[in-house]
Amino acid sequence: MSEHDPAPDPASPRRRGPYAKSAARRQHIVEQAYTVFASRGYHAGSLREIAAAAGVSLSSLQHHFSSKEELLVAVLARRDELGGGWSDSAARLPFAEHIVGQAEANRRIPGLIALYAVLSAEAVTAGHPGRDYFVDRYDGLRDAYTAEFTALREDGHLRDGVDPALAAATVIALWEGVELQWLYAPDRIDAPAALRAYLDLVLT
Amino acid sequence: MSEHDPAPDPASPRRRGPYAKSAARRQHIVEQAYTVFASRGYHAGSLREIAAAAGVSLSSLQHHFSSKEELLVAVLARRDELGGGWSDSAARLPFAEHIVGQAEANRRIPGLIALYAVLSAEAVTAGHPGRDYFVDRYDGLRDAYTAEFTALREDGHLRDGVDPALAAATVIALWEGVELQWLYAPDRIDAPAALRAYLDLVLT
Repeated sequence: MSEHDPAPDPASPRRRGPYAKSAARRQHIVEQAYTVFASRGYHAGSLREIAAAAGVSLSSLQHHFSSKEELLVAVLARRDELGGGWSDSAARLPFAEHIVGQAEANRRIPGLIALYAVLSAEAVTAGHPGRDYFVDRYDGLRDAYTAEFTALREDGHLRDGVDPALAAATVIALWEGVELQWLYAPDRIDAPAALRAYLDLVLT
Repeated sequence: MSEHDPAPDPASPRRRGPYAKSAARRQHIVEQAYTVFASRGYHAGSLREIAAAAGVSLSSLQHHFSSKEELLVAVLARRDELGGGWSDSAARLPFAEHIVGQAEANRRIPGLIALYAVLSAEAVTAGHPGRDYFVDRYDGLRDAYTAEFTALREDGHLRDGVDPALAAATVIALWEGVELQWLYAPDRIDAPAALRAYLDLVLT
């Protein structure tokens, strides 16, 4: 990439100026970082490599991110911002529609899905700077989905014998696992269809 | 580890001698390699680091494995040997029992599960030396499981409306995804129970 400072949006004149420029550069570095981490993993990707990909000097990068750990946390936060996380605003949609719709949207961001797959596996290791993020994220997602399945059961929409907590872990596992298969075989794997089929089985 | 040449099994006198010693050293290097790859990922783990972990010189390691790619393939083959792969001998067990039993057995090998999770995600990248292995492995597993679900359907044991190919992709995805959650929360996630619950839903 030759352009490392995206032009300010002309529709947002208030975002011009040094602050906007710095924010745009920061975001550009985060985007390059997730490309590098996605292709090489967190441990193998270096700050020097990310600076080069972003077209900035190492010291300029370090002005924005004092450590690789800080950059990783920004990359993970960016993923949540782009979707894949469970948010209160999304909860206005019925649960199953939200899940399938989000899986549809993920088709547009294979690189981010790949990065997330690498990091979520790599971060299992004790001492990995992303570990706490994933422990909290899985706990939070399971809790949120368990609450949804429990509410559906109270409304008579959960198949008899289905355990809400087990169904919550299953949806998350199936989602991540089937997206990984899709990255290898995008023409043969339909992740939203797999999620829809599971939800159709457990919801009545 | 200080011992890098396991003592020959006294019950197998024919395996003594230089060939047995070389085979034992080779296997020991593979075991150290998967520990290193599991904790640091394939790209970040170096041959030098693996040689140090195995207590052998770099040139001795290179006598057994001329490249890091060759070592990766040996590590993946070792995983298949230790279980997790679908084999003809396993097919004597009913399908659902085989799946759940294998998931039970995987509880004893969290490090290998973690390595496989890292590599299967990392290898999505074009040009990764493990990519072909995973493309073939997912294709082969899906084909084998699809055949099982199809046979179960012919015997009247598949719930109406369940697609054998989608169920095959789902079992694989759920399995890998829920084992990843288990690595983060071994006291809260029961991978065999999640697989059993899904199979109970689709099989009649």
